[in-house]
Amino acid sequence: MACVAQKSNMEFNCMTRYKIEVEYDGTNLIGWQENQQGQSVQSLLQDAIKNFCGEIITVYSAGRTDAGVHAIAMPAHFDLQRDWDADTVMRAINFYLVNQPVSVLNCEKVDDEFHARFSCIQRQYRYVVINRRAPTVLNKNRAWWVPQKLDIALMREQAKKLLGKHDFTSFRAAQCQAKSPIKTLDSCNIIQNGEEIVFEFAARSFLHHQVRNMVGTLVDIGLGKPYDIDEIFAKQERCAAGVNAPACGLYFVKGLYATDDSQQ
Amino acid sequence: MACVAQKSNMEFNCMTRYKIEVEYDGTNLIGWQENQQGQSVQSLLQDAIKNFCGEIITVYSAGRTDAGVHAIAMPAHFDLQRDWDADTVMRAINFYLVNQPVSVLNCEKVDDEFHARFSCIQRQYRYVVINRRAPTVLNKNRAWWVPQKLDIALMREQAKKLLGKHDFTSFRAAQCQAKSPIKTLDSCNIIQNGEEIVFEFAARSFLHHQVRNMVGTLVDIGLGKPYDIDEIFAKQERCAAGVNAPACGLYFVKGLYATDDSQQ
Repeated sequence: MACVAQKSNMEFNCMTRYKIEVEYDGTNLIGWQENQQGQSVQSLLQDAIKNFCGEIITVYSAGRTDAGVHAIAMPAHFDLQRDWDADTVMRAINFYLVNQPVSVLNCEKVDDEFHARFSCIQRQYRYVVINRRAPTVLNKNRAWWVPQKLDIALMREQAKKLLGKHDFTSFRAAQCQAKSPIKTLDSCNIIQNGEEIVFEFAARSFLHHQVRNMVGTLVDIGLGKPYDIDEIFAKQERCAAGVNAPACGLYFVKGLYATDDSQQ
Repeated sequence: MACVAQKSNMEFNCMTRYKIEVEYDGTNLIGWQENQQGQSVQSLLQDAIKNFCGEIITVYSAGRTDAGVHAIAMPAHFDLQRDWDADTVMRAINFYLVNQPVSVLNCEKVDDEFHARFSCIQRQYRYVVINRRAPTVLNKNRAWWVPQKLDIALMREQAKKLLGKHDFTSFRAAQCQAKSPIKTLDSCNIIQNGEEIVFEFAARSFLHHQVRNMVGTLVDIGLGKPYDIDEIFAKQERCAAGVNAPACGLYFVKGLYATDDSQQ
């Protein structure tokens, strides 16, 4: 229960904090964050909550994904004045999200210290490439189609250099608002299942476009461009790295918290 | 090269037969077969071939899937008067299929004895169920969402009884045109990957709606309905079996031919 002082009368009003995990298909959304330009995951969730219980609230997430980016399980939290059963909250939001590209996977009550963004200790992303000559139709809007043959061994060799603590300025979007470009990449794996190439990344946090810029650069390397990750880091400028991979191949997979029972 | 006598002058005209494998997203298609009611895989392929080389031909497939059903690699064949390079044929068809939900995966020249439908010795189908309480958005139109918990062990126990040679009348659509309801099911596996339940079936051939009726019945069993596959077979009537599973979860996976190098 989060106790917040109300401006009008300084009375304490006990709120209940709920943590949810959300799946979404970002294809026709403007991204996580609400603005006036279209439907966002945040606005769809806030509208559904308003329709369910009348409360106008803000939903906070572990990550603010861009337009076209998907989520398998994006953690988020919000506070409600009424102490509903968590299962009721999940079912009610999904009821009001019917036919929308957003689904609440689970819901639990959490301590008011919990914050989906600030308490998150690791974020996991996946990027899917379809590497074959024929266009992909079953994975349209779900993967990046790369028709030229990729050299996976070369990509893996360079990908290793991304691991650990670095200044990721060369992999950062111009509009990135993070205070520091220094980040620590905990893991970076490239898994090949036939024509499907899956990139998996984990870090406490990422810069804006960092995953897509890393994938774009690795794909450029796989296509034979003579990039060296160490040299790209050293140059500290966006134009030193490769292309920004398209949004449609990117998935926010999971956010971890110190309070999780299992950190897998 | 297929030599066919032309009606007008009885001259022999040598045609080249091409075998292709096709991926398609059946969501917005009326199915494989062309008719006047909308876009079909067959009509899209025939139009693309006509646009490419001007020839008006018929494309024959291993299976004629229904509206909403997908294919991972549907074999098909057609004859062209001109002896094009197979790779050119593949690329040209895909060029004219741009932004359509159909993609040609590969193309090869085959002997005129080859027939995508009649030479096929095994057809493989997959059916995907998402079994979890929250609606699925990333697998919308790609799987059947079943929110109630399925008893997989019970489903597997009954699924075994489908194997082998049986009269599949109880699993056959009213409009099925097959001469005999006797079919032999070569394999039937249920694979669980977390919330995803994948049914895999293989047989020389299937009756109309047979896979969807088998899956619907197995899901009914998994939900606790007291069906027994042996009893359903014995009754020999469609109403003895369970529901017809929705088209969106069904995929034609592969067709095998005696001429294949590898029959995997």
